[in-house]
Amino acid sequence: MSAGTVYGVGLGPGDPDLLSVRADRLVRGARHIAYFRKTGRPGQARTLANELLPEGVIEHAMEYPVTTEIPLSDPAYNAALSAFYTDCTKRLRMLTDAGKDVVVLCEGDPFFYGSFMHLYTRLKDDVPVEVVPAITGMSGAWTATGAPITWGDDILTVLMGTLDEDMLAKNMANADALVVMKIGRNIDKVRRALRTAGRYETAWLVEYATMPNQTVQKLSDAEGKVTPYFSIIVVHGQGRRP
Amino acid sequence: MSAGTVYGVGLGPGDPDLLSVRADRLVRGARHIAYFRKTGRPGQARTLANELLPEGVIEHAMEYPVTTEIPLSDPAYNAALSAFYTDCTKRLRMLTDAGKDVVVLCEGDPFFYGSFMHLYTRLKDDVPVEVVPAITGMSGAWTATGAPITWGDDILTVLMGTLDEDMLAKNMANADALVVMKIGRNIDKVRRALRTAGRYETAWLVEYATMPNQTVQKLSDAEGKVTPYFSIIVVHGQGRRP
Repeated sequence: MSAGTVYGVGLGPGDPDLLSVRADRLVRGARHIAYFRKTGRPGQARTLANELLPEGVIEHAMEYPVTTEIPLSDPAYNAALSAFYTDCTKRLRMLTDAGKDVVVLCEGDPFFYGSFMHLYTRLKDDVPVEVVPAITGMSGAWTATGAPITWGDDILTVLMGTLDEDMLAKNMANADALVVMKIGRNIDKVRRALRTAGRYETAWLVEYATMPNQTVQKLSDAEGKVTPYFSIIVVHGQGRRP
Repeated sequence: MSAGTVYGVGLGPGDPDLLSVRADRLVRGARHIAYFRKTGRPGQARTLANELLPEGVIEHAMEYPVTTEIPLSDPAYNAALSAFYTDCTKRLRMLTDAGKDVVVLCEGDPFFYGSFMHLYTRLKDDVPVEVVPAITGMSGAWTATGAPITWGDDILTVLMGTLDEDMLAKNMANADALVVMKIGRNIDKVRRALRTAGRYETAWLVEYATMPNQTVQKLSDAEGKVTPYFSIIVVHGQGRRP
């Protein structure tokens, strides 16, 4: 085992005031941080942590070789990402082998659709890894709508906008409460699926939940709108309530 | 509108270090707190906040008139709970009308299957209410298992153990990743449904996630075990991973 520890620290939905006490302490006390970003961009995780980072912190940016240039279904996508994660693992191990701790900044909750998982599975047998859970982006989104997401025995289903339209529609019809993530360029497909499932009129669109530029609107009022990848669609459950 | 504010503060899964920075600040600075509990018990939310409460804080315990003595399906259950929530609302309004702020301590995330929602809907048109989201109990549980809950396009479904067995089995078969909450006396039914759905062998049981008495085990290794109501069953997704 390496002498240093990798901390996979969830930063939550965006507002620095919504980091956990533990995450806040780890980020403020970090000597080495690492984070994913798209080449040429500051990186969402790095931006969220901006006000918290101590002076002199050493930064290790991990830049995706591809994001949306190659379709997910292309084997080249998988090969490029796999090599990338292996390379990131080596960089982190060089630090932990030298006895240094590294805080990996993660948007949302690290184990919930996060990229950190790809490092975690490659590191966990050789390096001490601690994962700090966080408030999910979807919790930030449903809180922003000002209405509870689930009541009583409601079934909640979480769907990615990257799924095919039939799969989306079938699962949307079946659930009581719904969250759809990874919207962006999938928005038109997601709208059609919500219509097919009879859930379009009660869907809400939340952009930049808990951040200063947060917007909350009925999805039907955002017709034709271009939305960021990290926007979230919420359909509230209507279950038992005394 | 009342002059005081009601804060619905999510305490997260249990570890006080996992409160958000905002929740921690609100609880430590509270003059008035309120919380639900079963009559004669200290109350889980109150217990979680124990180390954080300032000296001299004024406590308002809200004691459920019934919990499991009457079946959920009995109209008397709904009537008793409805009268209870209305009474709690009146107590909180007396405080806010007098200009006092009240922190309502909530286990988990207030808008995710929480009792606070029943106060929120009754208060929100007359009293300023702020809801502080939190790390959900299920995030605490899947982090405790040491394995990510969802990958790639995995579909996550959250089910309550109180649902009937057919409904449970059907939804368990359909999802990639699963969380089952409200276990307790529903454990045998939930086991049968998991078996029917072919998910029993890969299910994990987490009790008291993130708390000092946390246990994590394969559900199949806990045969015959009595589990608390707040234990959580997790089945991890196996989606795309480069």
